[in-house]
Amino acid sequence: MIEIKRDLVPGVNKDFYKTELQLLRKIVAGVNRRVHKHYEIRWYRGFIRPYVMVFFYFKEEHMINQYLDATNLKPTATIEEITNLCEEAKENHYMAVCIHPYYIALAKDLLKDSTVQICTVIGFPLGMNTIETKEFEAIQAVSLGADEIDMMINLGAIKDQEYEYVKKEIETIRDSIGGKVLKVIIETCYLTKEEIIKMTEICNETYVNFIKTSTGFGPSGAKVEDVRLMKEHKNDLLEIKASGGIRTYEEAQAMLDAGATRLGVSKALEIVKGEQK
Amino acid sequence: MIEIKRDLVPGVNKDFYKTELQLLRKIVAGVNRRVHKHYEIRWYRGFIRPYVMVFFYFKEEHMINQYLDATNLKPTATIEEITNLCEEAKENHYMAVCIHPYYIALAKDLLKDSTVQICTVIGFPLGMNTIETKEFEAIQAVSLGADEIDMMINLGAIKDQEYEYVKKEIETIRDSIGGKVLKVIIETCYLTKEEIIKMTEICNETYVNFIKTSTGFGPSGAKVEDVRLMKEHKNDLLEIKASGGIRTYEEAQAMLDAGATRLGVSKALEIVKGEQK
Repeated sequence: MIEIKRDLVPGVNKDFYKTELQLLRKIVAGVNRRVHKHYEIRWYRGFIRPYVMVFFYFKEEHMINQYLDATNLKPTATIEEITNLCEEAKENHYMAVCIHPYYIALAKDLLKDSTVQICTVIGFPLGMNTIETKEFEAIQAVSLGADEIDMMINLGAIKDQEYEYVKKEIETIRDSIGGKVLKVIIETCYLTKEEIIKMTEICNETYVNFIKTSTGFGPSGAKVEDVRLMKEHKNDLLEIKASGGIRTYEEAQAMLDAGATRLGVSKALEIVKGEQK
Repeated sequence: MIEIKRDLVPGVNKDFYKTELQLLRKIVAGVNRRVHKHYEIRWYRGFIRPYVMVFFYFKEEHMINQYLDATNLKPTATIEEITNLCEEAKENHYMAVCIHPYYIALAKDLLKDSTVQICTVIGFPLGMNTIETKEFEAIQAVSLGADEIDMMINLGAIKDQEYEYVKKEIETIRDSIGGKVLKVIIETCYLTKEEIIKMTEICNETYVNFIKTSTGFGPSGAKVEDVRLMKEHKNDLLEIKASGGIRTYEEAQAMLDAGATRLGVSKALEIVKGEQK
C-alpha cells in the first residue's frame, strides 16, 4: 500500500486535493511496479495554485515481483486465504493474483484500488470440457471482473492430432473475452517435444497473449528446457508463462532467463524475499 | 455383444422379425446384466404366428459387473481409448462408463444399442467453478446424451461452512438435469469426519441419488471407513458410490460390504476377472 502524506495548503478547495491525490496514487502505483518503493513526493505552494512533484528513483536492477502471478488454486481455498493472497499482492505489487472463478468477485472487491490484475482459470485443470462450457465460463469470468484468462486446452484432441479442433477452441475463447489477456495452458508434462512446438505454433497463429507451461496439477511443472523450446518457436508477440513447481528466486530467475515473462507461483513472497537477500 | 440367431419362418413378414428382434435384444441385454451370459433363446413356429421363448438361467452368486462405472477421466484420453472402454463395458455389462463431457457424443453413439449408462463429470475435479458454469455444463451434458451426472462440490465453501451455498449449488444442478441420476462428489480426503457427516446430511436433504467419495485426482481415494460413515448417516434413498484407488476384486467387494452400491473404477476388467477366479 502506498501512503501519500502532506499538509493542506490554506485557501484551496478540498475536492481539488481529493482528485489530485487519487490521480497521484494511480500514477505512483503504476510506476511503482517498476521502481519498487523508491519515490519521493514533494508538494509546492506555487504562484497560481499548489502543485506536486513526484521524484522516481529508478533502480537499475531487475525486480521480480512484476513478473509474478501469485497463485492459489487449491480446491480447498477459503475466503481468508484468498483475502491474504490479495493483500500480499497489493503490498508487493505483483502483476496478478491467479484464483478460481468462484473467487473472482471477492478478489475484484479486494483489489479495486490497486493495479494487481485478476487472473482466473477456465476448464481447469483437465480441459476435457466442451468448447461451449469453456466459453460460458470465460464470458462469465470477464463479467465478474477477471482481467486475464488462463484456459486449459483439450489434451485428448491433441493426442488425436485434432489440431483444427484445438485451434477452434482457442479462437472461440479468445473471441469471447473482449480483448482481455488470454493465456493458453498446454500442460507440457503430457506432451512430446513435437506437440509443444505444434502448440507454440498454434498460439502464434491465434494471436493469444501467452502460452503457459503447466497447471500445477499434472505429474510435473515447468521445465527450463520446455520454456527454451517455446521461445525458439514463438513469434515476437507471444509471451511465455512458466508455472508449476517454481519455488525459489533462483528457479524463478532461471525461467525468466530462458524466455518466460510471467511466472505462476504459489509462494510469491518467498521468491521476492529471495531476491532481496 | 449379444448375438441372436435363428431361421426365418416362411410366409412371415420380415419387418415383424426386425421389431421382435430389437425388442428381444433389449430384454436380453437388460436381464443379462443380472444373469451374465446364461440364457437360451428358442424359436417356435406356433399355430397362429411364430413365437420365441427365452430361457434365463439365473446364477445364484453375486455379479460385480453390474456395480461398475468403468472410468476413463485421464486428461489425455483419446478416441481409441474411449472406444475400447465402451466396447468393454458393452461386452461385460457394466452399469456405466464414466467419461469427460468432451466424449459424451462419442460414447452415446457407441453405446446406442446397449443398456450401459453414460456417466459424465461436472466441475471436475476441483469444483471451484461458479454455480452457473456447473449448471451450464450439466444441462449441456444431458442434451448430449449423458444419463448420469457426477458433480464436484465446492470444497472452499465447505471449509468456510457456507453450507447454504453448497446446498443451493446441488439443488441447482439437480433441478437442471431433468431427473437424470445425480451423484455428488465430496472428495473425502480433504474433509474431516464432521464434514463428511454434514455432506451426507445435505445429500439426504437434497434427495440426490448418490454421494460419491472421490474424484481420483485428490491425494487419496475411497476408504472403507468413510463409506461406512456415510452409510450410518444416509437415509434409505441415498446410495453410495466409492471411487478412487479401487483396483482389485477384493477391494471392490470390501466397498460393497461397507455399503457402496456403485464403484468407480479405471481397471474394471481386472475386477471382473478377479471375481471369476
